[in-house]
Amino acid sequence: MIKAGIIGGSGYTGIELLRLLQNHPEVEVVAISSRSLNGKRVDSVFPSLAGQSDLVFSLPDEVELNACEVVFFATPHGVAMESAGSFIDNGIKVVDLGADFRISDANEWSKWYSMEHTQSELLSRAVYGLPENNRESIKNAELVANPGCYPTAIQLALKPLIDNKLINLSNIIADCKSGVSGAGRAANQATLLCETSESFKAYGVSGHRHYPEIKQELELLADSSVGITFTPHLVPMIRGIFATIYVDLLDSSVDVRPFFEQTYSDEYFVKILDDGIYPETRSVKSSNFCQISWQKISNTNKLVVMSVIDNLVKGASGQAVQNMNIMFGFDEKLGLNQIGLLP
Amino acid sequence: MIKAGIIGGSGYTGIELLRLLQNHPEVEVVAISSRSLNGKRVDSVFPSLAGQSDLVFSLPDEVELNACEVVFFATPHGVAMESAGSFIDNGIKVVDLGADFRISDANEWSKWYSMEHTQSELLSRAVYGLPENNRESIKNAELVANPGCYPTAIQLALKPLIDNKLINLSNIIADCKSGVSGAGRAANQATLLCETSESFKAYGVSGHRHYPEIKQELELLADSSVGITFTPHLVPMIRGIFATIYVDLLDSSVDVRPFFEQTYSDEYFVKILDDGIYPETRSVKSSNFCQISWQKISNTNKLVVMSVIDNLVKGASGQAVQNMNIMFGFDEKLGLNQIGLLP
Amino acid sequence: MIKAGIIGGSGYTGIELLRLLQNHPEVEVVAISSRSLNGKRVDSVFPSLAGQSDLVFSLPDEVELNACEVVFFATPHGVAMESAGSFIDNGIKVVDLGADFRISDANEWSKWYSMEHTQSELLSRAVYGLPENNRESIKNAELVANPGCYPTAIQLALKPLIDNKLINLSNIIADCKSGVSGAGRAANQATLLCETSESFKAYGVSGHRHYPEIKQELELLADSSVGITFTPHLVPMIRGIFATIYVDLLDSSVDVRPFFEQTYSDEYFVKILDDGIYPETRSVKSSNFCQISWQKISNTNKLVVMSVIDNLVKGASGQAVQNMNIMFGFDEKLGLNQIGLLP
Amino acid sequence: MIKAGIIGGSGYTGIELLRLLQNHPEVEVVAISSRSLNGKRVDSVFPSLAGQSDLVFSLPDEVELNACEVVFFATPHGVAMESAGSFIDNGIKVVDLGADFRISDANEWSKWYSMEHTQSELLSRAVYGLPENNRESIKNAELVANPGCYPTAIQLALKPLIDNKLINLSNIIADCKSGVSGAGRAANQATLLCETSESFKAYGVSGHRHYPEIKQELELLADSSVGITFTPHLVPMIRGIFATIYVDLLDSSVDVRPFFEQTYSDEYFVKILDDGIYPETRSVKSSNFCQISWQKISNTNKLVVMSVIDNLVKGASGQAVQNMNIMFGFDEKLGLNQIGLLP
Repeated sequence: MIKAGIIGGSGYTGIELLRLLQNHPEVEVVAISSRSLNGKRVDSVFPSLAGQSDLVFSLPDEVELNACEVVFFATPHGVAMESAGSFIDNGIKVVDLGADFRISDANEWSKWYSMEHTQSELLSRAVYGLPENNRESIKNAELVANPGCYPTAIQLALKPLIDNKLINLSNIIADCKSGVSGAGRAANQATLLCETSESFKAYGVSGHRHYPEIKQELELLADSSVGITFTPHLVPMIRGIFATIYVDLLDSSVDVRPFFEQTYSDEYFVKILDDGIYPETRSVKSSNFCQISWQKISNTNKLVVMSVIDNLVKGASGQAVQNMNIMFGFDEKLGLNQIGLLP
Repeated sequence: MIKAGIIGGSGYTGIELLRLLQNHPEVEVVAISSRSLNGKRVDSVFPSLAGQSDLVFSLPDEVELNACEVVFFATPHGVAMESAGSFIDNGIKVVDLGADFRISDANEWSKWYSMEHTQSELLSRAVYGLPENNRESIKNAELVANPGCYPTAIQLALKPLIDNKLINLSNIIADCKSGVSGAGRAANQATLLCETSESFKAYGVSGHRHYPEIKQELELLADSSVGITFTPHLVPMIRGIFATIYVDLLDSSVDVRPFFEQTYSDEYFVKILDDGIYPETRSVKSSNFCQISWQKISNTNKLVVMSVIDNLVKGASGQAVQNMNIMFGFDEKLGLNQIGLLP
Repeated sequence: MIKAGIIGGSGYTGIELLRLLQNHPEVEVVAISSRSLNGKRVDSVFPSLAGQSDLVFSLPDEVELNACEVVFFATPHGVAMESAGSFIDNGIKVVDLGADFRISDANEWSKWYSMEHTQSELLSRAVYGLPENNRESIKNAELVANPGCYPTAIQLALKPLIDNKLINLSNIIADCKSGVSGAGRAANQATLLCETSESFKAYGVSGHRHYPEIKQELELLADSSVGITFTPHLVPMIRGIFATIYVDLLDSSVDVRPFFEQTYSDEYFVKILDDGIYPETRSVKSSNFCQISWQKISNTNKLVVMSVIDNLVKGASGQAVQNMNIMFGFDEKLGLNQIGLLP
Repeated sequence: MIKAGIIGGSGYTGIELLRLLQNHPEVEVVAISSRSLNGKRVDSVFPSLAGQSDLVFSLPDEVELNACEVVFFATPHGVAMESAGSFIDNGIKVVDLGADFRISDANEWSKWYSMEHTQSELLSRAVYGLPENNRESIKNAELVANPGCYPTAIQLALKPLIDNKLINLSNIIADCKSGVSGAGRAANQATLLCETSESFKAYGVSGHRHYPEIKQELELLADSSVGITFTPHLVPMIRGIFATIYVDLLDSSVDVRPFFEQTYSDEYFVKILDDGIYPETRSVKSSNFCQISWQKISNTNKLVVMSVIDNLVKGASGQAVQNMNIMFGFDEKLGLNQIGLLP
């Protein structure tokens, strides 16, 4: 049984970590911090916990956090960067659900996040936490950069095609759709029910912070330059990411199924659907699964690949738990073996 | 490890049983029947199960069902009545999630369900499965009538007040609200998204089938006649029951809190909220909990009691698992210790 | 053609006034103020207006407002109180969509709104703008207090019963449900999509600001004291109010239909539904109609009366336009004769 | 004042025609047919009409239909094909909201609609009713094929680019999203609230019936072969189409704004948004407008064009009224000048 702490636990990834870790047989959450909610009972903020947790929000520098074996940062960008180092120095493993360690080039990070990256050295030690790509590195990592939600859905959909050099790398289009919880729990006019319900919109088309992360990781996969157009949209629902990805096959006659099946044959959390079945975000709601399928467009070399995840689980807190499991040598499924909630 | 079967598993209570039992350490679902889906893989109908279940829908008379220790009926009314007996005769315990054994008076049942009740003898052996009321009887039951969703929410809210003779029994009003999943998974114009979303309505005001069940059970609790007005409404959401119950206190100065706390001090699934906190259905979404609070209306003897459950869990499949746990001597929380999904 | 101004037009009642008045043949909106949006084009804030309006938000003291024949206040409480007087002194008619002039007793108002009421004299000149009750007074009013949304739905449902002395006035229960737009357009964590969608909750049970307004107006109708319990709830939808009202008939054998039909025979905006038909909020979405029906509970003296309105139309901006039509001698239906949006 | 009839008025395009024509000063709806609802009052089926319409559903061959000047078919495919001819022979103008006359090649139609097209001669006389393309032909048409919802959104987004030969015609991707009302009002498990709410999915990826219509019309515009990949998705909302279209500019340095502005300078129903503003479906909810914007992807020749319509208005009934206005020489905006409903 290890002790875990959550820093910045007042948002949706915080409560999701609590929900998942509650069922984890090897982990106990002993501290959760929030500057704004310091002193409040966690179950007064998240009523789903009523009577199930005696945790109280603390300040982030509390002693309990330093008694943990692992600390999760569920903070806005810029926070983990400043304090992750001291935990690591104390031998505490860190998983950052935020963006501070996802982009390996500090200058590139600074450009997209409008803030100087002050921890280049730490950045070089961080491991990008997509287990399906980097499992071996994660095993020994002291600091894991948990991937963004869109990058997770896109990378899992493209990995078999890039690994096997099946597509034109310069003309990839990722038309992505997200539930509103991706925008967080802060008071914000743009995410009121009355502004988002019964509507669908695009946003960040001119440039979204997940773009450099997607491009960096796809280029690492391909060991080559990648040209990708990424368009995020907002769906009137709480949870879910749907990625519709358009690629040009180098050989339009190729059957991609064997490549997908081989890539993910040992991956518990990635499910390849049967021909003619397209994913729905509800199929993975509340679960850590990713479901993938595709459609070849007849008489063309176009392939449409579709993937779904729950942005708060495989796209955030679930993947963080998966990374923690790997870092500590636990069964990767611990705490994550629940079936999705349907309906 | 016991073997369980599900009869009529093509609906929402069926998939919910599968979801909950998947995490139950003492139960394996070995058979699930559906006449309409016979031969289809369960995960082709419920895509949340993709890759997690090899079950195939069978006809209800398959051998596998008779090899079970427990069978759940998730069928429309009239079905369990006809075939529960043969399972019981074979020593198989039965939990009926439908309405066939909820009303002890066969004539009354026939009036409300527009069908003759053919199994009076079996009816007399059925135990009404609200554990918070009937735990001892459930322990030895061979046939449990799993309560309706509205009756569950209402009884749990009123039990402390009736047990302790605190209210006028002749003037109870239960204004109840349900998510759409209560209407089932059958193709039905009235429950299309475009007919129910962005709208709120009352239904069954002149008489709902849960009314005689509510009245019967409250009268058993009170050992007296009870006058209750019950108005169900439909909420544009998938899951959840909210009951707002208006009662007249016999003594307007009484503090009801001690009575609620005492009644439920040992009940894991019933949570009494703090003063001034009102329940929300999302707090119990996907969980087996019931949350209850109340408000005394100043200068009157009116008390407003509010309770919430997830209609598919504590209002159906979760309570069925809870009953099964009791019937088999398992820890009552097995398979049911997940925190609700929020957001 | 008269000129109209809107003060505080940045919220949902502001855009709704613009929508309705756009189709009004006798009114032109010439000014709309908002301190926070001063200088912004209205269609940049409300994209439904793109290319249909050249209005720009101004400060509230602009010359254009004083050149109007009528000014609508769509402001938080406390604002209209301070500046309505100067418009009236200039011969400009005022309709306040806020609460400043709804409660005739300044002390009572101050208690509920946590602010001193500074304009008792003006208060005494205000007319409560429920046309179905006060049409004659509205005709000559210089200042109309536009009713709250819940009070509108409740009063219209009860008027025939109170006018005709059919019910026990001391035991009325109004269980009411509202869409989220009633909470306004301000950034507020509690009304985020992720906090309100897929959930139903009660709020303000211990005391809601509409309570004294409801009580005052029902007592005026009854010319007697009235005891009413009022419980508001939040529904996961944008628009709509549903009121479920429980009353005790003095004579349980009375047929209330003739009383409803007589009361509303000449009221275009109030529709009495046929027996057995219950209202749905979607039936009046975007329209100024109120639909009413009821159910007698057999073997009791209970009557359940149900009414629906769109909280932003008959519950706010539509009723304000209706009041304006009456004040200026226009056909009461002008600008309000659109059919509700279904689905 | 002309007389209009609606054939097959039991669905969402039927009630939408009634809503729009109710405010049309030159049209009276005198007959509405539905085989399944024959004899029922229209306001008993569509409660938004309560007290506002005395229409009764009739059989389609009633005398009233033949006394009309215009008849709208709001029927499943195959129906208008059989009976449009007799109306035209009687001098009655016909607008078909269905698909029977949209594809000029009868064999191609038969392939996609799994039914023989029996009226080739009639097909050759039909005019495709996208006013922004075909206004002159519509003026003299006796039979108008009202476009599909997706084709409308896509054509309006691409017309300026194709007309001005700005894009590579062989590599167009249209990633489209629709509200659930596009699936109609028939009882259907797949469009239940509990199956579609809180989820997002793709459908018809291997081939959707709107594909040949889109291809045909774009090729007519381009006077050349066009290669387009079309992927429809279902959004958990009632109304709205969002098209995200990816094209390759022939000259990546071109500024497309002048071409869009010039194309639509005289088109009341098409609004070009300012730079950096992306459309939202709620901006056109309940209105006949189409809003369009685009984003150039830097350092590439990719252009992302986005367009939104209300699928039941500009995508169906509103466009049908617009076509009727043109056919009868009315002001094109009659009955269609309402601002969209927001929120």
